Amino acid sequence: MPADRGQAAGQPTISEVAAEAGVGRATAARTLGGYGYVSPELRERVLAAAEKLGYRANALARSMSTGVSHTLGVIVADIGNPFFAGVVRGICDTSRARGFDTIVLSTYENLDEEVAATNVLIDKRVDGVIIASAAVGRREVAHIRAAMDRIPVVLVDRAVASLDLDTVVIDNRDAAREAVETLIAAGHRRIGFVWGPPAAQQPVTRRGLLAEASRNLWTDGERLRGYLDALDDARIPFDPELVMVGRKTEERVTEEVARMLSLPDRITAIFCTETDGVTGALRALRTAGLSCPRDVALIGFDDSAWAAVMEPPLTMIEQPVHRLGAKAAEVLLDAIAGGEPARETHTLRSRLIARSSVAPPPGPHH
Amino acid sequence: MPADRGQAAGQPTISEVAAEAGVGRATAARTLGGYGYVSPELRERVLAAAEKLGYRANALARSMSTGVSHTLGVIVADIGNPFFAGVVRGICDTSRARGFDTIVLSTYENLDEEVAATNVLIDKRVDGVIIASAAVGRREVAHIRAAMDRIPVVLVDRAVASLDLDTVVIDNRDAAREAVETLIAAGHRRIGFVWGPPAAQQPVTRRGLLAEASRNLWTDGERLRGYLDALDDARIPFDPELVMVGRKTEERVTEEVARMLSLPDRITAIFCTETDGVTGALRALRTAGLSCPRDVALIGFDDSAWAAVMEPPLTMIEQPVHRLGAKAAEVLLDAIAGGEPARETHTLRSRLIARSSVAPPPGPHH
Repeated sequence: MPADRGQAAGQPTISEVAAEAGVGRATAARTLGGYGYVSPELRERVLAAAEKLGYRANALARSMSTGVSHTLGVIVADIGNPFFAGVVRGICDTSRARGFDTIVLSTYENLDEEVAATNVLIDKRVDGVIIASAAVGRREVAHIRAAMDRIPVVLVDRAVASLDLDTVVIDNRDAAREAVETLIAAGHRRIGFVWGPPAAQQPVTRRGLLAEASRNLWTDGERLRGYLDALDDARIPFDPELVMVGRKTEERVTEEVARMLSLPDRITAIFCTETDGVTGALRALRTAGLSCPRDVALIGFDDSAWAAVMEPPLTMIEQPVHRLGAKAAEVLLDAIAGGEPARETHTLRSRLIARSSVAPPPGPHH
Repeated sequence: MPADRGQAAGQPTISEVAAEAGVGRATAARTLGGYGYVSPELRERVLAAAEKLGYRANALARSMSTGVSHTLGVIVADIGNPFFAGVVRGICDTSRARGFDTIVLSTYENLDEEVAATNVLIDKRVDGVIIASAAVGRREVAHIRAAMDRIPVVLVDRAVASLDLDTVVIDNRDAAREAVETLIAAGHRRIGFVWGPPAAQQPVTRRGLLAEASRNLWTDGERLRGYLDALDDARIPFDPELVMVGRKTEERVTEEVARMLSLPDRITAIFCTETDGVTGALRALRTAGLSCPRDVALIGFDDSAWAAVMEPPLTMIEQPVHRLGAKAAEVLLDAIAGGEPARETHTLRSRLIARSSVAPPPGPHH
């Protein structure tokens, strides 16, 4: 841990150094900040005053001599998603225990923002970066390659196929399969899936759907594959009308679930891959006057304090959010310390928390 | 907006510059990063190669010439709280529109972390800082004063009495009073308050309680004062047993609400000042076999998608989270642009979203 941690409170300010040296504040700031022109004589006086008062050389100057700034950078797709907030907590706790500070940028799923955020972190001289990237294609990862050329990089939550990097993820496909199997075991065959890929039009074939998924986020695609795995294992035919496509918003989920509930052979269960999917689906059930689990069963990502106090308490998939962040930080810190990166995929286990939102489907006269 | 935004993808790497110059990667990195020793001859070759390939001078070098790094720093008490995540979104949207990037540090309510975070942001040469501070006393703000001496600082969410700074907050006291008045208007007189100050022991007098609150977070104290205002206006005597004290966790709320529900003259309504208070209170109601709003009414901070899909949908206070962040960023960016800081308190309005968790208290035989 850096020796100066937490001691700024007792530090003299630039103004105090300036007063001691008998120079203007700007001159002291230029000298101590190492920028702009200061005459040799005034520079000498400022440095003497700084030493006398115990002014702390800033971390940038220290990093120039040691090569390590003791700062990790984190780029997440949306810090407003409690999943990413939990991952960041895991990163912060682990990095802090090893004497590193953590700075975070949120891209709100915008690739241009992600490129800018990567530049910011390199310019601010962080020692390594953890990224949950919005990039999906080979042509979208040049900024990550540029970062890799300078400092260690670890991916979290989202694998990017074209990058050979340490990657920390959960078992998305297995988690989704287990959830859908749970619904099938309760007797369901008409299971709605929200959300699917952000396609403009409903793909009409399974192949079309998977092609669309492979052009989009890895996590979403894996969860879709898990859903299809469970249907296949139970020999339940795939019905494209039961997969939501389009914008990934709570409002869109509400519309799509309403549509699936109004089909002649309506859904009796819903599997949601995101929190916004769960609240959107519950809104649609309420509007349709249907209750969970009597009329429609539901399982979703991600577990939360709210899910546990719902009526009924919801059966949810719990991701090891803190451990995801902690593991990513451990791998990155090892690389910063000089270890050879293994460039492997670290897959952590999620867990299905069984509560009360799954029951058998209603009888044939629903 | 900086001209280089989003163009890193097409940038040559340090390795490419090194190859072009016929030097090692470390030499190129030292030259382009401006640190360490490089012989004048090699330095010349690297710079020529960098120019030929169009290598981008890094932002640090640019900030040394312009004095502005186009980066805002944000320190929040807990990025895992959806309230702060919403504030950060407001800051990011506003700063981005004006060509600034935003980097965030979360202190998890730890003052030492906040001091370290402040040092990091100054060392990383951000142009200004927005802080939701965990500091409460005059002796805890030296790090903020040190930052103020270097760059503009704006407080958000939490006023700190001893600092003369632009401060962007909501009408916490009015918001709490309105919520408690709503419960009183429905007929309630035994209204539990969670959470109060983190005192080790239950204060037995109103004065003791307020003294404890004034030694703790400003927002919590303001909400407590609003609760007392509403009781006073309705001439309802203050009962210290109806105020939770102690650790601010969901588990503690559950225990304390259970205690208030088991009093001889039990509570018939609950006012929660935090999301964790709401989920904790709902757990306690469920355990006690009581239902909301038939047996116990409830109003809480902060509104969310979950609160709207609860059964019953919850009456909640909605804070203008995005606007809080946007306003703080506007004030800070104006100060960075050279405006004279007004050093005023900007108070934004919250809103009570009436749903279905408030009903009259049960009859005398509850």
